[in-house]
Amino acid sequence: MARFFVTPEEFSGDFLVLTGENAAHGKVLRLRSGEEIIICDGCGNERVCTVSDVSDGQISLVAKAVEHSITEPAVQVSVYMAFSKGDKFEHVIQKSTELGAYEIIAFPSARCVSKPDEKSLKKKLERWQKIAASAAEQSGRGRVPGVLVMGNYQEALSRAVSSDLAILFYENERSTTLKMALQNTPYHSVSLLTGPEGGLESREVGEAVSAGLQVCTLGTRILRCETAPLCALSAVMYDSGEF
Amino acid sequence: MARFFVTPEEFSGDFLVLTGENAAHGKVLRLRSGEEIIICDGCGNERVCTVSDVSDGQISLVAKAVEHSITEPAVQVSVYMAFSKGDKFEHVIQKSTELGAYEIIAFPSARCVSKPDEKSLKKKLERWQKIAASAAEQSGRGRVPGVLVMGNYQEALSRAVSSDLAILFYENERSTTLKMALQNTPYHSVSLLTGPEGGLESREVGEAVSAGLQVCTLGTRILRCETAPLCALSAVMYDSGEF
Repeated sequence: MARFFVTPEEFSGDFLVLTGENAAHGKVLRLRSGEEIIICDGCGNERVCTVSDVSDGQISLVAKAVEHSITEPAVQVSVYMAFSKGDKFEHVIQKSTELGAYEIIAFPSARCVSKPDEKSLKKKLERWQKIAASAAEQSGRGRVPGVLVMGNYQEALSRAVSSDLAILFYENERSTTLKMALQNTPYHSVSLLTGPEGGLESREVGEAVSAGLQVCTLGTRILRCETAPLCALSAVMYDSGEF
Repeated sequence: MARFFVTPEEFSGDFLVLTGENAAHGKVLRLRSGEEIIICDGCGNERVCTVSDVSDGQISLVAKAVEHSITEPAVQVSVYMAFSKGDKFEHVIQKSTELGAYEIIAFPSARCVSKPDEKSLKKKLERWQKIAASAAEQSGRGRVPGVLVMGNYQEALSRAVSSDLAILFYENERSTTLKMALQNTPYHSVSLLTGPEGGLESREVGEAVSAGLQVCTLGTRILRCETAPLCALSAVMYDSGEF
């Protein structure tokens, strides 16, 4: 069943209306009267709706009772990725959303060669949030992960340690595995931090330890900066019993 | 240290020579006399070598003792992915290699909309094997995963069940998780099968069960056909103690 995210205001009442981009998307899907779709408030609530009318720019719906989404994972994983070149962050937003991330956060680090300036950042954030929304619809999520940007590295560290577990992955770490970290602490929320193309500086790893993060390995192979966060996220979802 | 894969013949002796694409690659990296690199035979053996001379089309090396690669995982994972559109298989080859896959295998299934014909297949296989070799070099692997193509679905199933564990992922499976499958059987080799964009037909899932595969879920969210194999591979590597 096709899935549409609407604002909390558009979500209440027995008769709902899809407008704007949602209506356009419904047109593309050739929705017809009598078909059923799912409407989500983006916060984990959803309703099955029956299309009652399709007209220019709007699709009218008759909504059933509100249900709690069953596709949201029990664990809240925050994926922190250092700014990287090209469209790697967009790739990670799409895949992390499918894999169940709670939120996806870009942060600057010493060896980042590509940081968007203030001016382009606003547009990029809008675009990134749309990628998350689209991936959430396609993968059947009950909420759209927030996409955030940290102003500096310290801000990322301070925010990350508010999770039950905050883990930084570093290619020179040999002994502490992700499994050790996950099995030593009961967790409901986890922050996963990974570096840019050139890796993190050892000074930055020291700062993370001082801030209270654990430093872990993702194995002996060197993962690309867009592979590491998805590998770690998959492992946490597996460990927490999602599949 | 830069890493080069050579043939077993080029690997023996105290004085080695890089030629062809390896020499060209060394030129790109601006290798100079005195620098150290790693030479791999692609079968899990490697040697640290010192560059002794760089000339047109060849790089001469003085080789140290043969060592066993420490970056190859203990578990042998075969990633079977149904033929898919665009460059998704190439993406999966690159990422699976980084993540430690033993081999990567494309197979046809009923809803595959894109199957290369006999004529283009040979060229594609060469290209795919190069992607694996390049990813193996970059990620520091000790061997290059084989890239194979199965002629039909049954062939994929028959081959897969020769592993200690053969698992097919199906979005309509609700109860059996990957964790259940991995924790019920000691494993040294695992085959992971995932379907194409349109999913597997229920008839095909039945055939897999008849052939001896287990059917598992990857969670309640719908993963894209290029996300599912990498998620499953990451989880198996995690479960087997790689990180």
